[in-house]
Amino acid sequence: MDSATCLALAARRGTVHALSVHYGQRHPRELRSARALARHFGAASHSVVRLPIGPLLDSALTQHRRTLTRRPGRSIPPTYVPARNTLFLALALGLAESRKARAIYFGANAVDYSGYPDCRPEFVRAFRRLARLATKTGVEGRPIAIRAPLLHRSKPDIVRLGERLRVPWALTWSCYEGGRRPCSTCDACRLRRRGFKGAHVRDPLDIAGTTP
Amino acid sequence: MDSATCLALAARRGTVHALSVHYGQRHPRELRSARALARHFGAASHSVVRLPIGPLLDSALTQHRRTLTRRPGRSIPPTYVPARNTLFLALALGLAESRKARAIYFGANAVDYSGYPDCRPEFVRAFRRLARLATKTGVEGRPIAIRAPLLHRSKPDIVRLGERLRVPWALTWSCYEGGRRPCSTCDACRLRRRGFKGAHVRDPLDIAGTTP
Repeated sequence: MDSATCLALAARRGTVHALSVHYGQRHPRELRSARALARHFGAASHSVVRLPIGPLLDSALTQHRRTLTRRPGRSIPPTYVPARNTLFLALALGLAESRKARAIYFGANAVDYSGYPDCRPEFVRAFRRLARLATKTGVEGRPIAIRAPLLHRSKPDIVRLGERLRVPWALTWSCYEGGRRPCSTCDACRLRRRGFKGAHVRDPLDIAGTTP
Repeated sequence: MDSATCLALAARRGTVHALSVHYGQRHPRELRSARALARHFGAASHSVVRLPIGPLLDSALTQHRRTLTRRPGRSIPPTYVPARNTLFLALALGLAESRKARAIYFGANAVDYSGYPDCRPEFVRAFRRLARLATKTGVEGRPIAIRAPLLHRSKPDIVRLGERLRVPWALTWSCYEGGRRPCSTCDACRLRRRGFKGAHVRDPLDIAGTTP
């Protein structure tokens, strides 16, 4: 939902190059969605980088025996992947500089940042500074902008924005599991349901009506 | 030379996990050296991450038709790879947090930083800040240290330090080309020669004596 809404925002501003990362998450379902969305919004390119770091990184998202459920009283969920957004943004930075892009769109949002350290405004600010210092374009006075337009939006807010931008929700995927239908019980499914419910919008993926 | 000296420094402090990245550079020769050095210094593990981003990134190091020669008057050399050190450090950060490491050793040095933006002290400081904000360990008050012990050392200084640490120079590789012997003309070979010459140390790779 968040990436799709970011893509819709970026596509209104000019040429877009899409980037997806397959880093050993439990299923490639979300990559299929990414491809469909890149096509839908007319991305000039869609780079899928295979990053075989799953076995290296300690997380429930990359190690299949671990539980996805959040333990009560623990502020950072088990789905936290060490340095994941730093890595994604570093890849995006290299790609952006090579393609002479002027901005990177990053779909971090207010709901996520309550749990993940690398979705907080101070992380985005620190990466913006790093991007300016790390790159040739930054040194030459034309730093690549790091945009996080969803950072302070709630999930219902994102659904409302996506509706205005005509995001095809049927092409998106949120569930951490890779079944034919969303599991409806993982954290991602629950956040998604809260978003659609709060915005009074029907989720087209909610076929069975299990997510009222 | 720089990575080997860093590894020697780190190995004196405790358990070391080595990380190499194969990102589409011209030749895998330096990976063979890295394996030999990790073994020599008794690294607890050596992760080689294959990062197929060569075609995505605009650089003479990853695009084989481009010249490696520095054009006069241009401050950043053509061997600059967009966001390379940001990407390497992001990988190292994820690995370090997963392995519960306390520090990352980064071999950037004073000679490099005259040309590459991502070898400068301000880049290292910005990454240190990012690492603290991006990670669970950072948020919990135990940030992973980012050490760049060679940052302010010249190449002769590094050779002298490596001699004291008994770095096996014969196992190291600097040349940008992947021949059986160093080409002796690329920037990396010239920097290496300057280092050994300045420290009055014989380079064991200089078999033909072409680098007096």
